[in-house]
Formats: sequence, C-alpha cells, structure tokens
Amino acid sequence: MAEKQRWVLANRIAGMPAPTDFRLEAYDPGMPAEGELLVRTCFHTVAPGIRPKLSGRTYTGAVEIGDTIPGVGVAVVESSGDPHFSQGDLVTGETGWASHRLLKSSAVEKLDTHIFDGGVPHTAAISAIGPAGLTAYFGLLKIVELRGCETVIVSSASGAVGSLAAQIAKLKGCRVVGIAGSDEKCRRLVSDFRLDVAINYRSEADLVSALERACPGGAQVYFDNVGGEVTTAAIAALSDFGRVIVCGQTSEYNRTEPYGLKSLVPVIVKRLTLFGLVVYDFADQFREARREIAQWIREGQIRHAPTVIDGLENAVDVFVSLFAGSGDSQPIIRVSAV
Amino acid sequence: MAEKQRWVLANRIAGMPAPTDFRLEAYDPGMPAEGELLVRTCFHTVAPGIRPKLSGRTYTGAVEIGDTIPGVGVAVVESSGDPHFSQGDLVTGETGWASHRLLKSSAVEKLDTHIFDGGVPHTAAISAIGPAGLTAYFGLLKIVELRGCETVIVSSASGAVGSLAAQIAKLKGCRVVGIAGSDEKCRRLVSDFRLDVAINYRSEADLVSALERACPGGAQVYFDNVGGEVTTAAIAALSDFGRVIVCGQTSEYNRTEPYGLKSLVPVIVKRLTLFGLVVYDFADQFREARREIAQWIREGQIRHAPTVIDGLENAVDVFVSLFAGSGDSQPIIRVSAV
Repeated sequence: MAEKQRWVLANRIAGMPAPTDFRLEAYDPGMPAEGELLVRTCFHTVAPGIRPKLSGRTYTGAVEIGDTIPGVGVAVVESSGDPHFSQGDLVTGETGWASHRLLKSSAVEKLDTHIFDGGVPHTAAISAIGPAGLTAYFGLLKIVELRGCETVIVSSASGAVGSLAAQIAKLKGCRVVGIAGSDEKCRRLVSDFRLDVAINYRSEADLVSALERACPGGAQVYFDNVGGEVTTAAIAALSDFGRVIVCGQTSEYNRTEPYGLKSLVPVIVKRLTLFGLVVYDFADQFREARREIAQWIREGQIRHAPTVIDGLENAVDVFVSLFAGSGDSQPIIRVSAV
Repeated sequence: MAEKQRWVLANRIAGMPAPTDFRLEAYDPGMPAEGELLVRTCFHTVAPGIRPKLSGRTYTGAVEIGDTIPGVGVAVVESSGDPHFSQGDLVTGETGWASHRLLKSSAVEKLDTHIFDGGVPHTAAISAIGPAGLTAYFGLLKIVELRGCETVIVSSASGAVGSLAAQIAKLKGCRVVGIAGSDEKCRRLVSDFRLDVAINYRSEADLVSALERACPGGAQVYFDNVGGEVTTAAIAALSDFGRVIVCGQTSEYNRTEPYGLKSLVPVIVKRLTLFGLVVYDFADQFREARREIAQWIREGQIRHAPTVIDGLENAVDVFVSLFAGSGDSQPIIRVSAV
C-alpha cells in the first residue's frame, strides 16, 4: 500500500448515515513510542453498533469530527514499542477503518496462531471468535445460562452477533426463531444456519402473532440485537420467567427520539429478567471461549461465512447499506494481505 | 352489620378513576358449598395496583363490569364448608371491597395468631406482613440479594410496598433515597422512616440531577413501584451493574398509551439487570418471612403505620385520592371489628 489512509467522521450524524458524513484521508499515524505499536490492518469490521458514537450520544463514548471511524481489526505489527510484541506478530484490536494505526499495546491482543489451525479463517478473529461471537457466547452460556430444549428468539439473526447466537443455541439443542429484515436473509437463516423458523419483520404485518405461532408455549430466551418494535413484540412472545439478553439496539441508533420499551408491565406480569451485556466484562474468559468456538467451526457445527469486501475505500458504502437493510449483515473489509 | 354490601365496577375506566365508575350495592354472597368459606371482612386494602384490572387490560386479569372491586382483606370465617376452617377463624384472602365474601378455602390463608403477639396490629396482615410487605422483602432480599452499604432508590416510597422496601433497606445498612409525590410525604419519609434523602418528583425540576446528588457514586439498586418518567430518571442514576426490581407501574395505569422505558441503551451500557417481581412466586417462604417482619415490627425496626379509614362506603373516595397524589399512600378500610 502506497499511502497510509483512514476514514474520519466529517459530520455529526442525526438520522440515516450518508456517504457525505465520512471522509477518506491520507494521514501519518507516526511511529510508536514506548508501549505503543504501529500496525497494518488486514481486515476490519463494519459494525452497526458504532452508529450511536457517530451521533455523539452520551453513553457510548462519542466519535468526534475528524476522528477515525471505529472498528475491530486483524492486523500485523509493523513497528513495536513493546518488547512483548515483534514485527510480524498477528494481533487484534481497535484498528478502526484505517490502513495503519498507532495503538497502545495494552489494548491489543496477540493472536494465538493455533486458533486458525484446521481451516479457521483469519476473519474469524473479528467475527465468530472476535467480539461478536464472544458476545453471543457469553450472552447465552453465561448470562442466561441457556438450557437445551428451550425456545430462543434472536433478532438481527443474520447479523454478526445474531448469526452466532442462533447457531450456538441450535448446537445446544434449542428451538431457534430468527428475526431478520429481508426474505433472502430469512431463507439463508433456515437453509444455511438451520434455524427452525425465520421471520421477516419488514413484511410481517403482525409480528407478535407470527412469533407466537413460531414459539408454541412461548419462548424462554430473547437475544436482543435490535430494540424498538421488534423487541416489544419479542417480549410479548416470551413465556413466564423468560430471560432477555439486551445486547444491541440497532434500530434505535438512527432515531432522534428513542422507541425504548413500550411497557414494563409484561416484565412484572411474566416475571421476566432483562440483562444488559457488554462482552468485555468477560475478558478473562475470552481465551477459553475462543478455543471452544474455533473448535465448533472446525467441526462444522458453526458456519463462519462473513462477506469480505476488498478495499478500505468501500467501507462507507457498506456501512450505509447496513441500515437500509439491503446489505450483508456482517461485512468485513479486507484492507491488505495477512 | 345489617346488610351485606360490596363495591362493584360500574364502568370501564379509561383515564383517572372517578367515583361514578363504582357502585355500592347490597348483595347476597350465598352460603358456602364444600370447599368454600363465607367470611366477614374486618379490614381491606385500597391499592393502586388494581387500577389496570379496572381498564380490562390484557395482562392482569380484568375486572368485569358488575364484579366486586379487588382487595386483600383480613376477615373472620362466618360459615365454613371446609373442615380445616372453623367459624371464628381469622383469615387473609381476597375479600375485595365487600362486607362479606364467599371464597374458595384453597385461596384463603388462616392467620397464625401468634404473629400478632407483642403489639403487631391486625392491619399488618394486609400491609407489612401481607402481600405489600412480602413484596418488599422478597424483592430486596431474594431477587436482588441486597447487600449492606449499597445505595437504594425506592419510588412510591411512602406507599404500601415502598415504605416497607425503604425501611428494610435501612435496617440492612443501606443508604436509602425515596421518591414520593408531596413535600409532606417526603418530610415523613425522613423523619418517621429515617430515609437518608426524600425527593418530591412533582416539584423537582430535574429529577436525574436530584437523584445523582442524593446518590454519590450512583445507586446500586432501584425498587420500582411507579414506572414512567420516574423510572427512566432512576435508571439514569444507577451505577454500572445496577439492579432494578420492577414491581409496580402505578404511573402507567391511568395512561391510555404507556410511557414504558425511554431507552434500553443504558441497560446495555451500564450492564443493568431488571427483574420482574410477582410475590406469589415465593408463597412457600411466606410463613418464615412474615415471622421475620413481625419481629422487626415488635423491635421497632420497622414502623407499621397505615392510615385506617372507617367504613366500606369510603373506599372509592380513598381510591380516587391515591391517583391525585393527595391521599395517604397505603390506606386500609375498616369494615367491621375483628
């Protein structure tokens, strides 16, 4: 790559993101001081979850105008200011949407290369065995302690987190009902990911009834990646003592007024429990979880099939398409070779 | 009492309840068949929590027009169709707002008369050691497993559930911040119930800031009896990993459109847990809990001081005043002598 480049925020975003809200610029990240690393990005995610940061909302740590757009990446160390890292090491960390990045070594994780043995692709480090996959794993297995034979509803079921959550629930013996935003996504959820039912929330006139039909006796667990009306409908389809993993609120991120939760009365009447999840609380268990998910990939129990798009210059178009519901749900940008 | 009487629902209620929505009528409950009891009501509660049933909302089991208004009572068995109950037994159960009631014996609990030893009044059976007090007890001690030195926010803190929750949290060594609807209630919360801070949500222009000032470092627990804007503010004042007991949604019951929860984003970012609570799930532990609360009353650790209003004919005016915020928060109607 001739030049070091990055995407920065050009404007605060209020509604739907547009390409003009971003700017691709040449830049010089500088050389690493002590405790820093200069890395070259191989792959980075384009995740809907960064959306609120681009609006400067309070809770999530805003991206300022002129800042690099955030994203988790797989990268190679080009220059190290930390004796624990060497040139050529494969790492994962917050590369952002950038060809190169200067990172604190304490915020970077060296990748155990054996994790890729047996055909696990490098992109898995930022999807199935990255934050998205780990979120699905800890949400289901540690937060709600999923039991086999339960019925699980997953929203954004074809997304990075949702597709893993749906597959982990399947391999644990659950009935899994996925919610997604197009017939094509629903088709793939059933044919490729073996979900029991997939519901297109855009074309379904009565989502509550559709969920109730798909979950005879009610669902016991709802893995929420989306919020809004979908979440209110999913909660209506839960049985008594249902558990909700509140993980993402994608549908809220482009609203100026949040939709929130329509009513807390069902939470009381059905004795639901809602758990907020931030995966980094489980960082001390990541290594073990990654090994387990990688093994599931090798055994073919988990399908790892992100769409990989070549070229940093395409990141913004891919991001914008996420919110139009037209794009792939878990895209990864390939910036350079591993 | 010359005549058997009861309050019935005259109209479905849409907004604020009015006296004309109710009708006091003479009636004949009939004599008990096998497995039934005819009881004479001594005391009954007038609880804001029955409000949604009067609108016929789905989740809570509607009261139909012409039905007796629900309420928990202390009563004396007048005639028994169950060999386990004798005439003169003191019981608690769903007497409703009625001088007499025919009840299934399986839905009635005989009161352990020793529970009233040492000056515990009979009214406690339907307040501090009735469903309200038990709700506070199980919410704090079993659902969120309250730890000493935590900060607890209680909404409707002068209500039947809230005043017990606030006092139980105090005796467990917590800092307790109460929210109530008048300066007089707030004054009593601090002077009589020894709360650390009481906030009048009606006169406080910025409830979030007031709560943040009252909870340095954030609150760890929120006991929600009210819902609506107060709950959204209380959630804003919670610290990371805060726990919410979702127990009542009084502020929602007169709305035609629910307020719900403004946003689920803080639930994620602060990794909150929300627990819906219905006290009857703990029925097998009621006896032990009642003994413990009664002992706290005897020791003066819990103040049991409901306002007792004489005369069944006054029940409706008392109920209407609950929603105006002007009345006492935990009124009990005395219908006849024990």
